[in-house]
Amino acid sequence: MTANATPRPNLTPLPRPLIERAVTDALAEDLGLVGDLTTEATIPAGRTATCTMSAREPGVLAGIDVVRAAFAALDPAINVEAHKADGAPLAPGDAIATIAGDARAILSAERIALNFAGRMSGIATLTNAYVTAIAGTSAHIIDTRKTTPGLRAFEKYAVRAGGGMNHRIGLFDAVLIKDNHIAIAGGVAAAVANVRARVGHMVKVEIEVDTLDQLREALDFPIDAVLLDNMSPDTLRQAVEIVAGRVTTEASGGVNLSTVRAIAESGVDLISVGALTHSAPVLDLGLDTKISG
Amino acid sequence: MTANATPRPNLTPLPRPLIERAVTDALAEDLGLVGDLTTEATIPAGRTATCTMSAREPGVLAGIDVVRAAFAALDPAINVEAHKADGAPLAPGDAIATIAGDARAILSAERIALNFAGRMSGIATLTNAYVTAIAGTSAHIIDTRKTTPGLRAFEKYAVRAGGGMNHRIGLFDAVLIKDNHIAIAGGVAAAVANVRARVGHMVKVEIEVDTLDQLREALDFPIDAVLLDNMSPDTLRQAVEIVAGRVTTEASGGVNLSTVRAIAESGVDLISVGALTHSAPVLDLGLDTKISG
Amino acid sequence: MTANATPRPNLTPLPRPLIERAVTDALAEDLGLVGDLTTEATIPAGRTATCTMSAREPGVLAGIDVVRAAFAALDPAINVEAHKADGAPLAPGDAIATIAGDARAILSAERIALNFAGRMSGIATLTNAYVTAIAGTSAHIIDTRKTTPGLRAFEKYAVRAGGGMNHRIGLFDAVLIKDNHIAIAGGVAAAVANVRARVGHMVKVEIEVDTLDQLREALDFPIDAVLLDNMSPDTLRQAVEIVAGRVTTEASGGVNLSTVRAIAESGVDLISVGALTHSAPVLDLGLDTKISG
Amino acid sequence: MTANATPRPNLTPLPRPLIERAVTDALAEDLGLVGDLTTEATIPAGRTATCTMSAREPGVLAGIDVVRAAFAALDPAINVEAHKADGAPLAPGDAIATIAGDARAILSAERIALNFAGRMSGIATLTNAYVTAIAGTSAHIIDTRKTTPGLRAFEKYAVRAGGGMNHRIGLFDAVLIKDNHIAIAGGVAAAVANVRARVGHMVKVEIEVDTLDQLREALDFPIDAVLLDNMSPDTLRQAVEIVAGRVTTEASGGVNLSTVRAIAESGVDLISVGALTHSAPVLDLGLDTKISG
Amino acid sequence: MTANATPRPNLTPLPRPLIERAVTDALAEDLGLVGDLTTEATIPAGRTATCTMSAREPGVLAGIDVVRAAFAALDPAINVEAHKADGAPLAPGDAIATIAGDARAILSAERIALNFAGRMSGIATLTNAYVTAIAGTSAHIIDTRKTTPGLRAFEKYAVRAGGGMNHRIGLFDAVLIKDNHIAIAGGVAAAVANVRARVGHMVKVEIEVDTLDQLREALDFPIDAVLLDNMSPDTLRQAVEIVAGRVTTEASGGVNLSTVRAIAESGVDLISVGALTHSAPVLDLGLDTKISG
Amino acid sequence: MTANATPRPNLTPLPRPLIERAVTDALAEDLGLVGDLTTEATIPAGRTATCTMSAREPGVLAGIDVVRAAFAALDPAINVEAHKADGAPLAPGDAIATIAGDARAILSAERIALNFAGRMSGIATLTNAYVTAIAGTSAHIIDTRKTTPGLRAFEKYAVRAGGGMNHRIGLFDAVLIKDNHIAIAGGVAAAVANVRARVGHMVKVEIEVDTLDQLREALDFPIDAVLLDNMSPDTLRQAVEIVAGRVTTEASGGVNLSTVRAIAESGVDLISVGALTHSAPVLDLGLDTKISG
Repeated sequence: MTANATPRPNLTPLPRPLIERAVTDALAEDLGLVGDLTTEATIPAGRTATCTMSAREPGVLAGIDVVRAAFAALDPAINVEAHKADGAPLAPGDAIATIAGDARAILSAERIALNFAGRMSGIATLTNAYVTAIAGTSAHIIDTRKTTPGLRAFEKYAVRAGGGMNHRIGLFDAVLIKDNHIAIAGGVAAAVANVRARVGHMVKVEIEVDTLDQLREALDFPIDAVLLDNMSPDTLRQAVEIVAGRVTTEASGGVNLSTVRAIAESGVDLISVGALTHSAPVLDLGLDTKISG
Repeated sequence: MTANATPRPNLTPLPRPLIERAVTDALAEDLGLVGDLTTEATIPAGRTATCTMSAREPGVLAGIDVVRAAFAALDPAINVEAHKADGAPLAPGDAIATIAGDARAILSAERIALNFAGRMSGIATLTNAYVTAIAGTSAHIIDTRKTTPGLRAFEKYAVRAGGGMNHRIGLFDAVLIKDNHIAIAGGVAAAVANVRARVGHMVKVEIEVDTLDQLREALDFPIDAVLLDNMSPDTLRQAVEIVAGRVTTEASGGVNLSTVRAIAESGVDLISVGALTHSAPVLDLGLDTKISG
Repeated sequence: MTANATPRPNLTPLPRPLIERAVTDALAEDLGLVGDLTTEATIPAGRTATCTMSAREPGVLAGIDVVRAAFAALDPAINVEAHKADGAPLAPGDAIATIAGDARAILSAERIALNFAGRMSGIATLTNAYVTAIAGTSAHIIDTRKTTPGLRAFEKYAVRAGGGMNHRIGLFDAVLIKDNHIAIAGGVAAAVANVRARVGHMVKVEIEVDTLDQLREALDFPIDAVLLDNMSPDTLRQAVEIVAGRVTTEASGGVNLSTVRAIAESGVDLISVGALTHSAPVLDLGLDTKISG
Repeated sequence: MTANATPRPNLTPLPRPLIERAVTDALAEDLGLVGDLTTEATIPAGRTATCTMSAREPGVLAGIDVVRAAFAALDPAINVEAHKADGAPLAPGDAIATIAGDARAILSAERIALNFAGRMSGIATLTNAYVTAIAGTSAHIIDTRKTTPGLRAFEKYAVRAGGGMNHRIGLFDAVLIKDNHIAIAGGVAAAVANVRARVGHMVKVEIEVDTLDQLREALDFPIDAVLLDNMSPDTLRQAVEIVAGRVTTEASGGVNLSTVRAIAESGVDLISVGALTHSAPVLDLGLDTKISG
Repeated sequence: MTANATPRPNLTPLPRPLIERAVTDALAEDLGLVGDLTTEATIPAGRTATCTMSAREPGVLAGIDVVRAAFAALDPAINVEAHKADGAPLAPGDAIATIAGDARAILSAERIALNFAGRMSGIATLTNAYVTAIAGTSAHIIDTRKTTPGLRAFEKYAVRAGGGMNHRIGLFDAVLIKDNHIAIAGGVAAAVANVRARVGHMVKVEIEVDTLDQLREALDFPIDAVLLDNMSPDTLRQAVEIVAGRVTTEASGGVNLSTVRAIAESGVDLISVGALTHSAPVLDLGLDTKISG
Repeated sequence: MTANATPRPNLTPLPRPLIERAVTDALAEDLGLVGDLTTEATIPAGRTATCTMSAREPGVLAGIDVVRAAFAALDPAINVEAHKADGAPLAPGDAIATIAGDARAILSAERIALNFAGRMSGIATLTNAYVTAIAGTSAHIIDTRKTTPGLRAFEKYAVRAGGGMNHRIGLFDAVLIKDNHIAIAGGVAAAVANVRARVGHMVKVEIEVDTLDQLREALDFPIDAVLLDNMSPDTLRQAVEIVAGRVTTEASGGVNLSTVRAIAESGVDLISVGALTHSAPVLDLGLDTKISG
């Protein structure tokens, strides 16, 4: 599944303040007002531990900076040495990182570190499965706005770590005109004109079409991309021919690991997959801890 | 899958301030600094819309209060009439709620409402599948701390909506002694004694055991529950006999929809399933919008 | 100055949660831990007041929703009736809004309401002066990232209210390649290629050039816009000819109210003006208060 | 303009937590959910840069601690060496600080650092112009509550850096009785009595008067200062004679760089200038960056 | 104890945003991630309750607005009718307020409402005991900065409700020069001069003296008040004579209910009592609840 | 009073993020928008100070980690060397910690450090007085939910430092069924059944009883503890006999330092004391500062 996963050292990293706030909030959720009752009662102060975080199933890594921040939030002196970079393929048993430092802090932060890295790696792994499935075609896999509330930055990052690319970030950075917008605006012409009159020159405009007729109509207007919704590979192929390179083409709907290659072979530029962020199972990661003393 | 799902009108609801904060944060993430470019440009101010939120696949509902709050956050005058209560079974096409009010606000809040309700209903649905699979046994399905960072309250609520029960909320409200704790504390006796000397009388203590010998040792000490980790149904049955009702028994590890009934039939009280919160796919919900004017 | 200012009822409004948070923070700053000492001591509880907010000099209005929120934050029962919409031209003495309700709350919120509306209207007014100065040309006035820390949303909104358009919102929603980026990436080709390989299809790419030679080089690559930095109107005219409509052209540098028309007449599409947000003087607004009782 | 600006090493510094929060918020605004797309794509990880922040026009510096914090927020290892202290005069080309460290972090934080320092230095510079204009008189220049929402601490600090002094911080730390307060309280006597009965001994009381008759009336009561509103220099001179040193005198209204000296020569103690914080243009600062590698 | 306590309808109220934030935080602390387990399980949805909040011991009320906000935060439809105003004397059994509405919300918010009102009334009651003890003298009772972290606004308000007045709010709104400051500054003259050169005209300056010699020295400088630290009533009387009305006099140290009258009779203007906020016992308030249905 | 107080090195510490947030908020409250006016004006930049925090009366220490964090928040380079651990007995004059570093930062943070440590030590000291009073019995002293809003974590920690134990943390982690719950649920049987059907296996259930008859009824149901409310020592003794070790027994009501031993000798397991957190006077701590230079 991860054959073509390659480390991505230049992957745009998450802004540092975002990581720190998310990690602090997650630890607060888990530690509550009294902290880790079990660890504080059973592990004497001052003990140190050395742990190895490793993969228990094959996949693609995402979230190593968040792991680092989770341990640092409880004790800045904890040392996290990464053996894999985000985007790297993981085989079962592969060591991802070695964590060394105060035993209590490590045990108390462990679950939060794994919750972040497991979810992010799950998304990277599923993304990479789609990327692998269309290898050799000219299409790219992209995400959607169907992300977990509060974690969009982390999930869109994980998509990039898996080899995918990002669709728009939110409602604010790009325009996607859907059927309701067209209907109320009074047609495609009015909708595109209204949008063009209001948004800046750095904002791209995409329009959703359900049929080839709608596609032909849309191409008469100054748009940057078309979302070809719920079309069969054959219809997509015709759509690509009609577009003839004038705008970016995105296929959406009915995409799964069985159908994605046929969709990609239609010649579309992009295939958006909501499941990347709304239904990726966690990647099973573990932490083996050795406490000294 | 949802045959025995029944509405749960007395389900402990999410605290109102938690909902409001989460919804505000999620909307901020989606609206950024400039709002919904597409809707504002194409939908004239003052238009009203009436929408129906409905199920597109069978499942169990969770999150109706969050849906209500998401629309209210953009316009308190939007009216949300719920046709289903959290915990109710959903068939494809079932109407969940009718939303009526300002068209712009409804279109701008729609994705956030669906992101919450889809995820929460996905967890409720998966939980209910496990609950249904063990119907007639005396076991209950419970969750774990493997939740999405920042959303633990919402996910544990969804487990309850699906007919499951909650394990501890975090590291702070109950004790779960694992192998590392025992090893460093110097054995089960010391670990339990240390814990009992420190935690209050309202805190329960559970201990994880991997073998029947460990189980027998643990039962010598004042504990409330045992976590029987990664045992076969046969071993679990022997464990239940050994325990003989003295403490609560929880099975964990290797649980999936194929294995859960055999595990439940061993007689254990509880079966914890990490997948409920870390790997439940979203439930497909949709919003059909009719804008007047 | 505001001759061609016209009301903009369809202006993309500020997201409601942004307004509420900013207004609450500003009131907290002014009220501190003990509130409005003067008003509480001199105005008896229960008195009501009716105030008129009006313009004391000509300009363009921006911020009426923030005014509304500022009074509501201290007392939701205060009624704010707007007589002008954002984007409307203001003559000295024009009534902007009538505010009626609890006298103490109105007096305590007055300065914050004016601080927001005065600043936002100042930006709208200055923007409109630039827009007016280039009336009849095909150019548009746009803003920059030189905004007040914490208030970017409010300032970019005010630019729109004044008839301008927005450049990118931040570092995250569009690409602007400058000389440092080119130098380290190893040339324009490498810089554009690196960017295109990483950013999604909804992200536009602009490149800054200082000379016509650099412009010609840049046009060989897949970019959406060029920033023509610090060029004279004559050079800009040549640049526009070279570009020949292939990408959007933006002029930047040396722009003021004396030079902007000549720049616009060069045929560039956009003129960015940092001063709109970093140096606009406040628009003088006043609140005449009549307290009954 | 900055001839008599002198460094102010003992200037009361901004509280550290205020700086850190404001800088984090401003970076969050600029970096959004995905960070600096351009820099991350074009500058390889690990490159280092050395930059010089310098003045591009004459002025007075304010904000060096905020500059330091802005770079530290993205990478604590960045070294910022200041060559000028806040309050120091700047000539065009003067080096203000040298910043060295990770190239990506420096490029990504640069605009925020400049936005803070440019605005704060703009206020310090304008303040200093007023201070210079009244050199040799006994008057001091002070600010008002007409500050940018959310940035009052930073702007009042900048006024101090420019050689001005602060009026009250907000509604909570001092009393300023205006016409509305007097009218409703039932006259000056009642207004002052009500205030004195309620506020603590560390709170000063100032009263606004529009005429010399009102001034004479006010002086009958236990007040600390009078705000002489919109009086001509001649009237101010008479007011100063009437006051005869019994209370502090503040002139307000109609103050600009042409009128301020005549006002100061009337003998008033203080001249408050709203424009210091509501209409100061930014001071043009630049960052020249040299990236190694 | 509360004989001379009188209602204070014009008492400067707490700023509304402060109340809302504190109440939300306190409820979050008590409700955690799952809410009120007991109430939700035992009280059916839809039941209504009517409660009476009453005094169980004599005292002075403070905090009625906070009580109102605590119930509103869980259900805005709950009606709180106050029978007593803040500052009113309470006899055992006195009804303070009637609360009516959703039974679950009332039971869940009850403890937070009582925790605020009990503490605030405890401070008002203790303050009033001191105020009563010095009735007939010209002295006033004031508070200090020895407040509970995070609750200074609430505690200083309670002091006012009890008939006391506030000392400075924090380190930022007034100057209090103590021995360390004098020693390092190089004497009283230098300390006062340094302060006067830096702070605005609305800031008062107080200086702490331990002996009459120090007092005489301090009076040579432009100060507004003297803190007479740890002096006997006799020494205080001499100090008052020396001061002769030139500055405000504050006695501090060794103040308790047995000593305060003698101190007041020395003629000092103010007596500051740290115990008001650091050691006031709670006032016992109760809530009798009648649930219908 | 503190004879049997012993240091508690293994005391469950406060979660680090909680401390940092509380300390930052408290400093913000004291420093406002302009900082420590007095210190900044009188103490030259660069001076260093060495201070000793010591006890001025006998007691038990709590809060040393908060002290450390308060100074670090203003200057991370300040060194805090603790001479006593939380839970240690303090005699008058005992040195608690030595603080060395920047003089301005130390003077500005001093009051906040003392406010936290004084209050927390006051609670630890009062708790320890109760613990000492029942020495030799089998009972433990526990706290309640009558804590200061916003500081529950800190106060429950202080109770532990004083040798007490914690009751439930909030409404969310354990069940306490009171008379209202029983009445509306329709009796003890229904109340307990409803609760058991809803809460997880890690949640304990306690029920409040006022009479021995109610106690006998309650014992028929699956509960973990009984709260024996307002019973005399004799009645408590009978209650303990009736319970006969089947559930934990808690005495509540009418507890003070005179009555607590008789209550403990009744044989109850726990005695809850609201006064520990709602009425503990501060412990008098001081900071002697020596500034060099």
